[in-house]
Amino acid sequence: MNHPSAKPPAIVLLSGGLDSATCLAIARRDGYAAHALAFDYGQRHRVELACAKRVADHLGAASFRTVVLGLREIGGSALTADIAVPDAGSSSPSAIPVTYVPARNLTFLSIAAGLAEVVGAQAVYIGVNAVDYSGYPDCRRPFIDAFEHAAALGTKSGVEGQRLKVLTPLVSLAKADIIRLGVELGVDFALTTSCYNPTPAGLSCGHCDSCDLRRRGFAQANVPDPTHYATRDPA
Amino acid sequence: MNHPSAKPPAIVLLSGGLDSATCLAIARRDGYAAHALAFDYGQRHRVELACAKRVADHLGAASFRTVVLGLREIGGSALTADIAVPDAGSSSPSAIPVTYVPARNLTFLSIAAGLAEVVGAQAVYIGVNAVDYSGYPDCRRPFIDAFEHAAALGTKSGVEGQRLKVLTPLVSLAKADIIRLGVELGVDFALTTSCYNPTPAGLSCGHCDSCDLRRRGFAQANVPDPTHYATRDPA
Repeated sequence: MNHPSAKPPAIVLLSGGLDSATCLAIARRDGYAAHALAFDYGQRHRVELACAKRVADHLGAASFRTVVLGLREIGGSALTADIAVPDAGSSSPSAIPVTYVPARNLTFLSIAAGLAEVVGAQAVYIGVNAVDYSGYPDCRRPFIDAFEHAAALGTKSGVEGQRLKVLTPLVSLAKADIIRLGVELGVDFALTTSCYNPTPAGLSCGHCDSCDLRRRGFAQANVPDPTHYATRDPA
Repeated sequence: MNHPSAKPPAIVLLSGGLDSATCLAIARRDGYAAHALAFDYGQRHRVELACAKRVADHLGAASFRTVVLGLREIGGSALTADIAVPDAGSSSPSAIPVTYVPARNLTFLSIAAGLAEVVGAQAVYIGVNAVDYSGYPDCRRPFIDAFEHAAALGTKSGVEGQRLKVLTPLVSLAKADIIRLGVELGVDFALTTSCYNPTPAGLSCGHCDSCDLRRRGFAQANVPDPTHYATRDPA
């Protein structure tokens, strides 16, 4: 057991992007000892893992883990298979984009639920937002609620009565709101990356949906964008 | 799309043990092209992966994949951390055993749901049974039902109306019943392994809960046990 004055533990899913960095800052503000969890899942933008580590250090995470997960064996996404990452705006806005990774958040949350049991955490933070990622089914609260229920029934801590809460503090925020909140909480966004398709040197492409959302988010928030894009042309 | 006469695809979680081998035989009997999915999750009994591959070949799986999953980074179980595997009968029968791996089936099913999307499967077979593994919360049907609901809300195929079914044909069978059923369906149990704590040479220890269940199952089914135990002493 922790010392009574110690902070309670929470898990924070950390990708190296700006949403999850803001989530980590929120978990700290909420009084948690935040255990950061990143995934090396064969993503095209693996450069984000180094960012995740830097963000964890910068924001004082209680621990940082990278779990290897062989999703390239599964494929089915532009992020985990040889499928091109589309330019921003080139896909139908109502369709689920090809950058959707099958069952990714379901898998990430499941592993987080396991880690929560091990460190004794009753909260997991995930930086999903249903505003900017409306095409991704696993970024919506009804899914998260259903996941909480499954975890309550399928884990030791759950059946012992310690229901895991999955906290989604960004779910109804737009990118600009997240950036403003992150700035308020002291997040250094220069440490983060969002690009789905970075150059071999690790520069953000400036063209993909994720770069586009990021660039517009900083502009709308009226915050200088610290990102090094391979091109400064608007997408 | 498949040719109209082609068998529909299903995913079968294959561990190399006798339950999942029987599940694979059931999926074939049910008319599916069975895509076998195994996990290299840092398990102490990694020898089971070679068994899983042999079982998949023997039973004519449509494909076989091993997905790497770094659960040693999480730990918390005698199977994925430096915690001793207890001898059979040494733990309280009502307690969740230390061989429970936090959120394992939740994680395995999540990855299976992703693979199901990629190969177009609407069924996943998992060899859980609540009779012999009553201590494991993730081997019970209420958990599986809750998982199905979460997957329906959190995957592309789910929100597009193709609800994934998780089939648990062994859930109410005892080990001896599973063995009899497997024999009927042509499973060669000599290819399978159950031991949680094999010797360096890959022999079953003969002492752990899983060896004990297996040995008693064969005896009760009146089927010769093909297992090479490191010791023939009853546990």
